[in-house]
Amino acid sequence: MQPDSIQSFIRDVHDFPKPGIIFKDITPLLENPKMVDRVLQELAAPYRKERIDAIAAIESRGFLFGFLLAKELGVPFIPVRKEGKLPYKKIRQEYSLEYGTAAMEMHEDAVQKGWRIVIHDDLLATGGTANAAGQLIQKLGGEVTGFSFIINLDFLGGFHLLSKAYNCGTHYLIRY
Amino acid sequence: MQPDSIQSFIRDVHDFPKPGIIFKDITPLLENPKMVDRVLQELAAPYRKERIDAIAAIESRGFLFGFLLAKELGVPFIPVRKEGKLPYKKIRQEYSLEYGTAAMEMHEDAVQKGWRIVIHDDLLATGGTANAAGQLIQKLGGEVTGFSFIINLDFLGGFHLLSKAYNCGTHYLIRY
Repeated sequence: MQPDSIQSFIRDVHDFPKPGIIFKDITPLLENPKMVDRVLQELAAPYRKERIDAIAAIESRGFLFGFLLAKELGVPFIPVRKEGKLPYKKIRQEYSLEYGTAAMEMHEDAVQKGWRIVIHDDLLATGGTANAAGQLIQKLGGEVTGFSFIINLDFLGGFHLLSKAYNCGTHYLIRY
Repeated sequence: MQPDSIQSFIRDVHDFPKPGIIFKDITPLLENPKMVDRVLQELAAPYRKERIDAIAAIESRGFLFGFLLAKELGVPFIPVRKEGKLPYKKIRQEYSLEYGTAAMEMHEDAVQKGWRIVIHDDLLATGGTANAAGQLIQKLGGEVTGFSFIINLDFLGGFHLLSKAYNCGTHYLIRY
């Protein structure tokens, strides 16, 4: 690993959130302003020459670089939240967990018809929440024009799932 | 209300999260890049001539402008999260809710001794979570040098609580 690489600012935490899992912790990256700017520039690069109408990001960690990315590109920011958190009129999309289901929500006035929207989260694992965010955008008449992640845990299959379900690119900075 | 004021981008949602409460919804603001930049500039203004070593922000909505503020000031960003969310070694601080208690957590390596830290959240209500964040910073040897909010719900007493408990300023853009 290069000493100044983005990877060197991602910390492995063993056995979180449960035994056997190695969690990719981005908090050391958040403490380094130069690396934050570098990550932002790399996240923004694929969208600088495209028409993008909004960035949608998944709470909570996705809010961090998602909001920076929206500001950098000068477009609206749309929060995608866990059930019960958004205050206004909203739509919901269930998705599968290892055991049972959960749901993501979006305000029903968050998307204008025909908007080209990039979905951001810090990490792509199984793709369940990102896919739910994509389905919410499509329900509201928006078009998913890209997925953006810092980290892709490729062995969990999310990249493959999104590639099959959406006709758009999935961009990430680091793959494990 | 001025048509182009920050207030005009804050939406009142009645009876959320429970009957009788008027929720201040910032999502219309998040959809307007010009207003996002204006809010950021107003949040950053009090700290441009001070030595600030980090911004700590409270999940989830505090992550939005908190991370922007850290980037704008070129300082580290420290997430303060609800119990069980942070992966690494951490400390916790309980605080009172209307019924019972909850806890906020911070990574134990997030603060260097003597760091001057500003705590940000989108909204100041009773001050319970902001105070818990302040106590976490102090436990780790940091100094709370300011509180920063977009909205102060003054009638809920948080401003008074923080003024009594900390020897620093509490800055906000809008008061109700």
